[in-house]
Amino acid sequence: MAKYRRQHGLFVVEGTTSVLDFLNSEIRLDGLYATGNWIEQHRDHIPHEYTEVEEKELKKISFLKTPPEVVAIFKIPEPGNFDLKNLTGLLLMLDGIQDPGNMGTIIRTADWFGIDTIVCSPGSANPFNPKVVQASMGSLSRVKVYTADLTEMLKNRPDYLKTFGAVMDGQPLVEVAKPQTGIIIIGNEAHGISKELSSQIDFRITIPRFSGHKGPSAESLNASIATAIICYEFRK
Amino acid sequence: MAKYRRQHGLFVVEGTTSVLDFLNSEIRLDGLYATGNWIEQHRDHIPHEYTEVEEKELKKISFLKTPPEVVAIFKIPEPGNFDLKNLTGLLLMLDGIQDPGNMGTIIRTADWFGIDTIVCSPGSANPFNPKVVQASMGSLSRVKVYTADLTEMLKNRPDYLKTFGAVMDGQPLVEVAKPQTGIIIIGNEAHGISKELSSQIDFRITIPRFSGHKGPSAESLNASIATAIICYEFRK
Repeated sequence: MAKYRRQHGLFVVEGTTSVLDFLNSEIRLDGLYATGNWIEQHRDHIPHEYTEVEEKELKKISFLKTPPEVVAIFKIPEPGNFDLKNLTGLLLMLDGIQDPGNMGTIIRTADWFGIDTIVCSPGSANPFNPKVVQASMGSLSRVKVYTADLTEMLKNRPDYLKTFGAVMDGQPLVEVAKPQTGIIIIGNEAHGISKELSSQIDFRITIPRFSGHKGPSAESLNASIATAIICYEFRK
Repeated sequence: MAKYRRQHGLFVVEGTTSVLDFLNSEIRLDGLYATGNWIEQHRDHIPHEYTEVEEKELKKISFLKTPPEVVAIFKIPEPGNFDLKNLTGLLLMLDGIQDPGNMGTIIRTADWFGIDTIVCSPGSANPFNPKVVQASMGSLSRVKVYTADLTEMLKNRPDYLKTFGAVMDGQPLVEVAKPQTGIIIIGNEAHGISKELSSQIDFRITIPRFSGHKGPSAESLNASIATAIICYEFRK
């Protein structure tokens, strides 16, 4: 199945909300498989071509524990390139986010906070991996996810574009002035931002641990949690 | 294996950081299994009794894709009861958090923000499920997780203890006055806070979606993301 998807550039979307989100986007449908009941309920929102299937058949093709009433196959959009000169608003750069759940949650969170562009390093999780699609809860239909050499991209950025890197020993997040247009950089779950990319950070930011407590506490925050708190603070 | 753990009240911890965190806590060890190399490196921090094993044996007992050099079995602590009259600081209530990854991430985030007590409804994920333990990254050794009927517990709370429930249509988080001692309530991933428990909310709080954007965006935030942003704002 994984091989088939790669060769044909297809990916799978499951569940009503996500499928309707993707049908509502520019991403092209390849096939829609749903129960008769689901088709009846959503007739106004779906294309004329679909395949009516039994629940037990959906169970076979679903990646989920509780199989949904609808599964759709879409074409992976052409990767394309993003030119930083065109950036208005915030952009997220993900430097080696490995966990598909984290990647999907970050896409969902970006969508909530009105960030519609993400650029991943080549070593990041594949945004069209079924676990990423699932965790993004339809947001992958609205947020554009590019892959690029992040260091190269930043070397040529316009002077006015500032970068904010999440690190363990930077300035407290709340103390840094946050522009409406800028780049937030999040590193790998275990190793943070790569050394090479670190040279491109203008502002090193940190989410402070609660200090009113004695004794040990968590070593770090989960990468998707850190991303969310930073996006929240930029948008406040 | 799951049956064995339940009968004997044991749970599994994998990887150096987590195992050392639990060894450093009041939770009682049942057995430590590690490679000779690992034991050599950590001799000062481990008990006298352990079992030296080969990497391939660890591979068999590990739940992880990349098996660690150490796996330890601990005794699940007695559940106990938490009396709200003893609360100083913040407490998290989880009303039906189902996903083990979310539960573990919430425990890790609570630890980071100095919240050392969580109370779950009986319908929540088991905090000693291996996926929860893994996602908590050792924080489960420091944060106490109780299970109780949340509505009953809140009905008898002292008057000065206020509750803050995360909902879709409440006051913006930033506008609500946040006490140093209080209760944050997070609901189920799909259905939010149950109707019964909602009657016990003093302040209904919401993380605003970014409003500078036209068109649709994410329907909601992931439960562990919402929890983290609320904890961050309470601790700022």
